[in-house]
Amino acid sequence: MPHDESYHMTPDDFRTHGRAVIDWIADYMQRVEDLPVLSQVQPGEIREKLPTGPPEQGESFDAMLRDVEEIILPGVTHWQSPNFFAYFPANGSGPGILGDLLSSGLGVQGMLWATSPACTELETHVLDWVVDMLDLPGSFKSSTAGGGVIQDTASGATLCALLAARERASGFRINTAGMNLPLVAYASTQTHSSMEKAIRIAGLGDENLRSIEVDEKYAMRPDALAKAIEADKAAGRLPCFVCATVGTTSSNAVDPLRAIGAICRQHDIWLHVDGAMSGTAAVCPEFRYIHDGLEFADSYCFNPHKWMFTNFDCDCFYVADRAALIRTLSILPEYLRNKATESGAVFDYRDWHIPLGRRFRALKLWFVIRHYGVEGLRHHVRRHVALAQEFAGGVEADDDFELAAPAPLNLVCFRHKGGDDINQQIMDAVNSSGKMFITHTKLDDRLTLRMSIGQTHTERQHVQRAWSLIREAAGSATGLPSQSEQDG
Amino acid sequence: MPHDESYHMTPDDFRTHGRAVIDWIADYMQRVEDLPVLSQVQPGEIREKLPTGPPEQGESFDAMLRDVEEIILPGVTHWQSPNFFAYFPANGSGPGILGDLLSSGLGVQGMLWATSPACTELETHVLDWVVDMLDLPGSFKSSTAGGGVIQDTASGATLCALLAARERASGFRINTAGMNLPLVAYASTQTHSSMEKAIRIAGLGDENLRSIEVDEKYAMRPDALAKAIEADKAAGRLPCFVCATVGTTSSNAVDPLRAIGAICRQHDIWLHVDGAMSGTAAVCPEFRYIHDGLEFADSYCFNPHKWMFTNFDCDCFYVADRAALIRTLSILPEYLRNKATESGAVFDYRDWHIPLGRRFRALKLWFVIRHYGVEGLRHHVRRHVALAQEFAGGVEADDDFELAAPAPLNLVCFRHKGGDDINQQIMDAVNSSGKMFITHTKLDDRLTLRMSIGQTHTERQHVQRAWSLIREAAGSATGLPSQSEQDG
Repeated sequence: MPHDESYHMTPDDFRTHGRAVIDWIADYMQRVEDLPVLSQVQPGEIREKLPTGPPEQGESFDAMLRDVEEIILPGVTHWQSPNFFAYFPANGSGPGILGDLLSSGLGVQGMLWATSPACTELETHVLDWVVDMLDLPGSFKSSTAGGGVIQDTASGATLCALLAARERASGFRINTAGMNLPLVAYASTQTHSSMEKAIRIAGLGDENLRSIEVDEKYAMRPDALAKAIEADKAAGRLPCFVCATVGTTSSNAVDPLRAIGAICRQHDIWLHVDGAMSGTAAVCPEFRYIHDGLEFADSYCFNPHKWMFTNFDCDCFYVADRAALIRTLSILPEYLRNKATESGAVFDYRDWHIPLGRRFRALKLWFVIRHYGVEGLRHHVRRHVALAQEFAGGVEADDDFELAAPAPLNLVCFRHKGGDDINQQIMDAVNSSGKMFITHTKLDDRLTLRMSIGQTHTERQHVQRAWSLIREAAGSATGLPSQSEQDG
Repeated sequence: MPHDESYHMTPDDFRTHGRAVIDWIADYMQRVEDLPVLSQVQPGEIREKLPTGPPEQGESFDAMLRDVEEIILPGVTHWQSPNFFAYFPANGSGPGILGDLLSSGLGVQGMLWATSPACTELETHVLDWVVDMLDLPGSFKSSTAGGGVIQDTASGATLCALLAARERASGFRINTAGMNLPLVAYASTQTHSSMEKAIRIAGLGDENLRSIEVDEKYAMRPDALAKAIEADKAAGRLPCFVCATVGTTSSNAVDPLRAIGAICRQHDIWLHVDGAMSGTAAVCPEFRYIHDGLEFADSYCFNPHKWMFTNFDCDCFYVADRAALIRTLSILPEYLRNKATESGAVFDYRDWHIPLGRRFRALKLWFVIRHYGVEGLRHHVRRHVALAQEFAGGVEADDDFELAAPAPLNLVCFRHKGGDDINQQIMDAVNSSGKMFITHTKLDDRLTLRMSIGQTHTERQHVQRAWSLIREAAGSATGLPSQSEQDG
């Protein structure tokens, strides 16, 4: 019998098994570099190894941990590998993991201030810290009419921003009457797909999302935005929302917030700024230009779970006018009424996002900031940016390759000059080798490789090896020796 | 200097600090019973103890853990206390916590099958197990046209169900054109507030959510539902969605699914069933009657993070026709394209919920099921229900108190016969004592106390002590000796 008659894991067993898991993770940190980055399993391969039905009797913890090793691990794509250069990073860290572990252990629900005051107050407080750390507009601080909250993802943040914009534009009547106005929203052609998802969810419809053209740097063209708004107004439609991006997913383009913000002010349109990955860069003064004009924004988000060593999920979402957000999302049934809420002296974060329940997510962000200090975070952001710039330099120096877009920070978009097929072959070859993982996008309808540098333990040697692997794969794909082989 | 020059926590430091956190949680499990259940702090009290700004230099892990103890803990309401009887339980467990810890350590993103196949396949597989465990309709299994996914909360599940219903009713045109049909949804007066939130978000508007009357057991009246649907149809409106509840938040009422389902079939209306807390009861054959008629449902959800020892967040959401859900939520930008997705052989769970990113939540549920076995889960559900029934018996046997609603499972709604003020005084007194925590609702406009029994470590003695405390508080509130004192 693996368990006593209560079936529960005793605190002492928890100590034993907990240590085993901690050791497993520490070992994982040490060996992840040598594991194939992109899982090489085929569809269905993991499921085939699992029992058809649930166990009637409990099993030993050792058996479970063994199955993680033997069944699960081969099916894992290693986002924590220093050779992970795909998508955007999701860079975890020891303090983040342990802060989250404490959150699991405390197991509190933070839906109301009253259901665990520390859960709410630490979150408000740390999000105020982050305003200072990134030098964000003071209007986002909780001491003003604004404030911050941790959302699950930038998708959730964008949806909440859009809903608040929708309600503000309708005099808070769509919540009651349903969508009954010809509302229109705007984003660039490069905006993240979560914008389109939000437009659908909120009932505006794809047809009412205008895709604004971008300039040669893939940044939104303010003149095109202004023109689109004016055309919609002339046609009797109601522009209500603009989503600008600081660091687009495809190519890290930075939309010009100041010019966009002026247009939004002129037309009384809600401006949301999505800085999902790149926002973190503003911890360094030299990169704060990306937020120039952010004081025009009604809302803003970025994800410490991408580039700030805080494990998923942790999106910091700020609004300049929290009353609009709360009025949009607040519903107070009798079973949630309490004195603190009625006093008006507290934030009840259930009114700041879609779900009612919420875990104590501020702990992990607090731990990360305190462990690294602002100095440590700056150190790593600078390091990642420098590695990306060095990689970009290598691309530029190679006759067979070219940069496909400016690389202002830690993402390098590049391509082999031989065309889409060659680039696809290069990507497939390096990814199937298991030695690294990159992904692609399309820019000007051409297949473009994305080298995203931001994993916690990525060092110079990993980036250099990646570049070698890419050039070797190019050599195989083109049937020509790579430049490095020629050099050698 | 607390850190080496990399600023990172080394794997060896992670072992040391990880053990300290594991021990802290084990100690917490052992002492939580003696801590004041409801935090007694005042608004602002936690924030006052925190430094105004973030630290420039990193701090030691010991300092952080000390602050958790000294600053955070007094602001925690102890959802993991065996004396927690408020709201619904959020009953964590050792295996759940450690499964979640592994998820943090692996740090994978499961947005696509390809971004970590095991994350998707284990989730699909375990959700199929749960269909067997609860004897849910086979149409929810992934081997059919249906399937399950882990959502954050029942709020998210209800929203997704409503969106799929909205799209199905409009021929999938609202996503494109925006809300342009007079859609109507139905729920009982006792339905959770997340329904109203979803109605607002999806652009239907409160005015188009019909609150259907309930019977004397607070369950939805099918005749009233049918009448409302017919009236709406006669008025040219389009009924598209019914939300029925298995175990309402206020009083644990069970809506008659079979009768409601027949009406929904007749009118081709999407039926969503919310079994957030009570669904877990179906692990025991004797409680499966609550799901009678569930085969009529288009979607269903329940929360292992409430009553199945799986820490937040873990809502199991099932649909009978996954194509409708996926068609509603799917958007495939170039940077997410991959061969597995295009083969059609895999699930990409990003298309099953609001966010794009997602953590490896199936691990904790898998660990819980394997640790307890179905037998262990049944044991605890039966135990909690028996404790609630014993408590209800005590209420019925006391001349000063009465049951306010049927108590079919683990929630007892009751009140002192002396009226709202007395009940408020009783609740305030027991909660401010720190010895237990209960919350209230209103039934028939009368203040009603809710004794919700489902915390992992709640035993008979905790329930008995709670009843004594309540009777003592009643004695103080009424100025009369309580029955127990009279007995004694």
